[in-house]
Amino acid sequence: MTVQPRTPPGVMELLPGKQIAFQRMLDTIRRGFERFGFWPIETPVFELTDVLLTKTGGETEKQVYFVESTGSLQKRADAKERDGKADARPEHALRFDLTVPLARYVAQHENELTFPFRRYQIQRVYRGERNQAGRYREFYQCDIDVVGKDTLSLAYDAEVPAIIHGIFTELAFGAFAIRINNRRLLKGLLETLGITPELHAAVLHEVDRLGKQSRDDVAKRLVTAGLGEPERLLDVLTAHRGDSQGALAALHAIPSPTPSLATGIEELQRVYEGTLALGVPASGCVIDLSIVRGLDYYTGTVYETFLTEHADLGSICSGGRYDNLAEHYTKSRLPGVGISIGATRLFYQLERLGLVGDATTAVAQVMVLSLDPQLAGRYARLATELRGAGVNVEVYGAGDKFAKQLKYADKSRVPLALILGQQEDSRGIVKLKDLRDPSGANEHEVAPDQLVARVQELLARRPQPKLDPA
Amino acid sequence: MTVQPRTPPGVMELLPGKQIAFQRMLDTIRRGFERFGFWPIETPVFELTDVLLTKTGGETEKQVYFVESTGSLQKRADAKERDGKADARPEHALRFDLTVPLARYVAQHENELTFPFRRYQIQRVYRGERNQAGRYREFYQCDIDVVGKDTLSLAYDAEVPAIIHGIFTELAFGAFAIRINNRRLLKGLLETLGITPELHAAVLHEVDRLGKQSRDDVAKRLVTAGLGEPERLLDVLTAHRGDSQGALAALHAIPSPTPSLATGIEELQRVYEGTLALGVPASGCVIDLSIVRGLDYYTGTVYETFLTEHADLGSICSGGRYDNLAEHYTKSRLPGVGISIGATRLFYQLERLGLVGDATTAVAQVMVLSLDPQLAGRYARLATELRGAGVNVEVYGAGDKFAKQLKYADKSRVPLALILGQQEDSRGIVKLKDLRDPSGANEHEVAPDQLVARVQELLARRPQPKLDPA
Repeated sequence: MTVQPRTPPGVMELLPGKQIAFQRMLDTIRRGFERFGFWPIETPVFELTDVLLTKTGGETEKQVYFVESTGSLQKRADAKERDGKADARPEHALRFDLTVPLARYVAQHENELTFPFRRYQIQRVYRGERNQAGRYREFYQCDIDVVGKDTLSLAYDAEVPAIIHGIFTELAFGAFAIRINNRRLLKGLLETLGITPELHAAVLHEVDRLGKQSRDDVAKRLVTAGLGEPERLLDVLTAHRGDSQGALAALHAIPSPTPSLATGIEELQRVYEGTLALGVPASGCVIDLSIVRGLDYYTGTVYETFLTEHADLGSICSGGRYDNLAEHYTKSRLPGVGISIGATRLFYQLERLGLVGDATTAVAQVMVLSLDPQLAGRYARLATELRGAGVNVEVYGAGDKFAKQLKYADKSRVPLALILGQQEDSRGIVKLKDLRDPSGANEHEVAPDQLVARVQELLARRPQPKLDPA
Repeated sequence: MTVQPRTPPGVMELLPGKQIAFQRMLDTIRRGFERFGFWPIETPVFELTDVLLTKTGGETEKQVYFVESTGSLQKRADAKERDGKADARPEHALRFDLTVPLARYVAQHENELTFPFRRYQIQRVYRGERNQAGRYREFYQCDIDVVGKDTLSLAYDAEVPAIIHGIFTELAFGAFAIRINNRRLLKGLLETLGITPELHAAVLHEVDRLGKQSRDDVAKRLVTAGLGEPERLLDVLTAHRGDSQGALAALHAIPSPTPSLATGIEELQRVYEGTLALGVPASGCVIDLSIVRGLDYYTGTVYETFLTEHADLGSICSGGRYDNLAEHYTKSRLPGVGISIGATRLFYQLERLGLVGDATTAVAQVMVLSLDPQLAGRYARLATELRGAGVNVEVYGAGDKFAKQLKYADKSRVPLALILGQQEDSRGIVKLKDLRDPSGANEHEVAPDQLVARVQELLARRPQPKLDPA
C-alpha cells in the first residue's frame, strides 16, 4: 500500500530549475544586504508560545501554527481528562513574521550586541492563511532592520531605499519605484487641517485605500468616517503623486504648520535627499504623501515599493521607522527602521507575469560524457581539474550510448558537453559542444592543456542571466 | 509587564559574529555540492502527517513534532468532546530528516524530473531529543543524493567521498578521513564464514560497536549473541583498519567466497579506486571493513567520516547506497546513494574544540566615519562607489565624536575605517585605517581616485579565513 505523495496546501515547492531561479533571487537579496554591511542572524522556526504571543487572542493568534511533540500532546490531553480545565496552549508556536523574533533576539542578547544593531534575516515564516492562489502558509521573508538604543539617526532611513534600489536593479524584472512618506508628517497634516485627533486613525485608514480605490470613492468614505470636507486633505495628498519636488514645495507652502508637520516635512526631505545622495535616481525613490502603511506600528518614515508596469500587484516591499521594537521584552527603548521583501509571494507574482522562469542553465556548467570505459580515469581527472578551477562539473555516470548521454545533458540544461572518445583521444584533443548554441558550428576542438581556459571563455560568452527571464 | 525573552530549549541561536562563521560553513558546503553539479531543492518544513509517518507508532513518531493551527486544535478538541473517540493525529508534522521529504518529492514529481536525479538540500529538521548539551531539537542537515530509476551506476558511489573530501578540505578544521565499506560484502563475509543468516543482524549490530568499544568487548558480545568463534570474523574486519590495500588483499585471499562476497569486494574496490581517480588522496579515503552504518536501510556502499585528531566525536558525515528510496509512495524502483552532514551539531563540536570561533571580521569591509556633516554627501558617494566595486560598506550614521566612531568600527570588527574630515578634505586625500593592524603604521593616505584599488589591495593582504579558527 502506497501513500499518495503530496504537499500540504499553501506551500510553494519548486522543481529544480525554478528552485535555482528562486535561489538566485535570494542570493541577490542577501548580497544586497551584505553590501551595506548588515549582519546575518537566524532564529528558531518556533518560539515559546508565551514569548511569541505576548498578548492572548487577537487576529494574530487565529493564524498561528502551534507545535508540540507527541509527549506534550499526550500530557495536555491527560491534564484535560484529569482536571477538566480549559486547554492550555501548546508550548511552542511557529513564527509568523521576523519582527517579533528580532525583538526577542535583541532584548535577549542586548548586552552582547553593538548598537546600532544592523541585521538581515532571510527565513521562512508561517501563517494559517485562507487557501487560495498566491496566499502562502509558508513563505520567505527577507528583512533588514537597524535598531538603535535610545536614539537612531535618520541617516539609516535614507539607506533603506538605497539598499532596496540596488537589489531590485540587480534582479532586473523591470522599472520600479520606492515610494516614501512620513507618519509624523501625516499626523501633523491632519492637525494643521484642523481634523480632530479622534478622527485621525479612521481618516488614515481610508487614506490608505488611495492606492487601490479612486479618489472619489475615498472621499465618500472619508465623509462617512466623519470628515466634513475631505477635498483639501485629498488635494494635498494626491496633487503631486510621483513628483517629489512638487510635493515638498506644496508641503512647505502650507501655512501655520504644527510642530509635527514641520518635523515630518524636515524628516521626509532629509530622508529623500539622503537617498538621492546614495546614488538612487529620482525616478527610483519618490515622495508619495498618500502612503500610510498600517496604523500603529510605524511612527516616522514609511516605504512601499511598486513595479511601474505592474502597480496592480500592490507594494512588493514595505517597511518603515518605529519608535520602540521590544517593549514586551525589555524596558530599554529600541527605535529602529526596517523593510521586508516577501520573496515567496514576489516570486509567485513575477512568475505569473512571465518575468522569471526556469533557470535556463543547470548548476553544472560542464557535463563530461562517459564514452569509453577505458578512459574513465581521464574523465575523472578532467572533471577534477575543471572543478579545481571553480567550474561546476557533472560526470555522466553510466556507459550509455552517445545519443542518450547527449540528450540527458541537453535536458539537464548543462551549457557545455565535454566529448572524449577513442577518436578524440587518438588525435590528442577533447571536444567541447556548446549545447546552448543551435548552430552547426557549436563543437570546439581543444588541446587538453587549454581546457580550463576554453571552458571559461565559452561560459563567459553567454553569462547566466540573474533571474533567467523566460 | 514584560515577558522574559528566551529561546525554547534545544535550539542553536548564534550571536552575529558566530552566525557569520556558521553561514560561511553552509556556503562552503553548498559550493562543494554545486561544484559537482547537484541541483538545489527545498521542501516545506511540515508535511502532511499521513505522508510523513507512513507507519504509525514506532520510535520515529515519539520524536516527531506535530503542527496545527488554532482552528484545527479547536476542531480536534470539539470532535473528542462530541464523539469521545481517541485523538486523531494533528494534520501536519515537522520533518525529522531530509530523506523522507526527498522520497516524497521524487515520487510526487517523478514525471517531471530527469534521472539520475542529483539533488542537494540544506535545511533544518526537527526531533524531540532529550534536552542535553550537543543534542539539538532543531538542526541543519546538508544532504546530497543521486537517485536513479531502476538502476544507478556505481560511479556515483565513488563521487560521494570526493565531494565530501573537497568540502572538508576547504573547511580546513584539520585532518580527516572518509571510511568506506560495503554492506553486501559484510553479508557475503558472514555467509562465507558459515554464520547462519538468522544471526546476521545481531552480529552486525555488535560489529557496529567496534568504533567505540574494544575488540575484546565486542568479541564477548558476539559470543553472547550466539557466535561461537568470533575471532576469525574480527580478524578480517580489524586486521587492516586504515590500510586499504591490505584490506583488499586480505579479502581477495578469502577462499570460496559466496557470490555476495565476490560482488561486495568488487563494488568496494571499484568505489575506492574511483574515488582516488577523482583526486582524493589515499589518506583521505580509507577502506574500513568494520563500518556497518545502521542495519536495514543501506544495501551497498556505506560511508562514515572521522576527524583524525578527534575520532571520539564519532562520524561527522555518514551515508550510503540504498536499494529503493520511495517504496511508500511509488511502485517505481528508485535506487540511490547519498550522504548527510549534520551542520549544527558539527559546528557545536568544532566550536567546543576551539576549531571555529567568531568571525574575525564583520560583513562590512569598510566603515565610512561621519566626521563632518558638511561632507555627508561625499561620504554617501564614496560608499556608493565602493559598493559598486563589490565592497561591503557601512556608513556611520550619527555625528558622534571621532573616538566613539572608531571604537564602534573596531568593536564591529570592520577591517578598514575610511577617514575624511576637513583636514583630509583640504589636502585632497582620504585616509584608510587598517583596524586589523595593531602597528602605528596602519594609516594609509589615498587619493580619492585610487580609493577602490587601495581598499581592494588592503583587504587582500589579510583575506578572511574560511571558518575563522579562533
